[in-house]
Amino acid sequence: MSTNESNETIDRFNLRRLEVSDKSKGFIDLLQQLSAVGFISDEEFEERFRDLTSRGEEHVICVVEDRISRRIVATGTVFVEKKFLRGCGKAGHIEDVVVDASARGVKLGKMVVDFLVEHARSVGCYKVILDCSVENKGFYEKCGFEEKAVQMAIYF
Amino acid sequence: MSTNESNETIDRFNLRRLEVSDKSKGFIDLLQQLSAVGFISDEEFEERFRDLTSRGEEHVICVVEDRISRRIVATGTVFVEKKFLRGCGKAGHIEDVVVDASARGVKLGKMVVDFLVEHARSVGCYKVILDCSVENKGFYEKCGFEEKAVQMAIYF
Repeated sequence: MSTNESNETIDRFNLRRLEVSDKSKGFIDLLQQLSAVGFISDEEFEERFRDLTSRGEEHVICVVEDRISRRIVATGTVFVEKKFLRGCGKAGHIEDVVVDASARGVKLGKMVVDFLVEHARSVGCYKVILDCSVENKGFYEKCGFEEKAVQMAIYF
Repeated sequence: MSTNESNETIDRFNLRRLEVSDKSKGFIDLLQQLSAVGFISDEEFEERFRDLTSRGEEHVICVVEDRISRRIVATGTVFVEKKFLRGCGKAGHIEDVVVDASARGVKLGKMVVDFLVEHARSVGCYKVILDCSVENKGFYEKCGFEEKAVQMAIYF
């Protein structure tokens, strides 16, 4: 990517925190590309939004808005887990990173992940972790991550 | 394990939630077997304990106390992450599971993990996840988990 293209990307795409009005800007459609969301009413969305934002710097959802289409085209979440380990340390957990299929190839995923990592660092986490598919390992390595362990799951 | 041995285990080992007095019963020494803890003052411990227990059912630390030695010999944590995915669903995260080196072989690890999984289910999580080393995969498979993804990490 040339410097000009990079500046165009910065001008066109606005990275910021999730706002409650983003539901009408395609935020749910975007999440559907990651996993099933199902129907969420405006009231349910607002209640969950208020619950999550009440945690302040401990639970941050960022979005990228396309200034031309006014749609949300990328998102990711980081939350802080407080532990006793590491002198009552804190671990950052990155979750639910997705870039709209129409907006791939302009490094929005890296923009989102870099923001989330920097947030975890800025609030004093001793590490930041995430789980990804084998196919996405290379992307996260470019973002500075190293393979650490195996994720195990039970679905109820 | 025979039924008698199993009953002896149940009689001897008491699974319950962490109490603030567990710091003096070897809870920190136990966590040291998992990862560095460092020095934590009683005041720091109490503050972190109050912070975590204020989250109620959303952040539960269980311990196993040996009724003979009065020491904490196993522990594990489960916390609830609220999402927009899955109809404003909830994911359970299991962290910091460890059994004291002197108390292995009597299935305390499985007792702890079963409790944490059941807690995640009881509060309505659609899944429960954890990260483990390749060596511990077999143990978690016996607890009902399946390999799902790769855990990636940055240490600051």
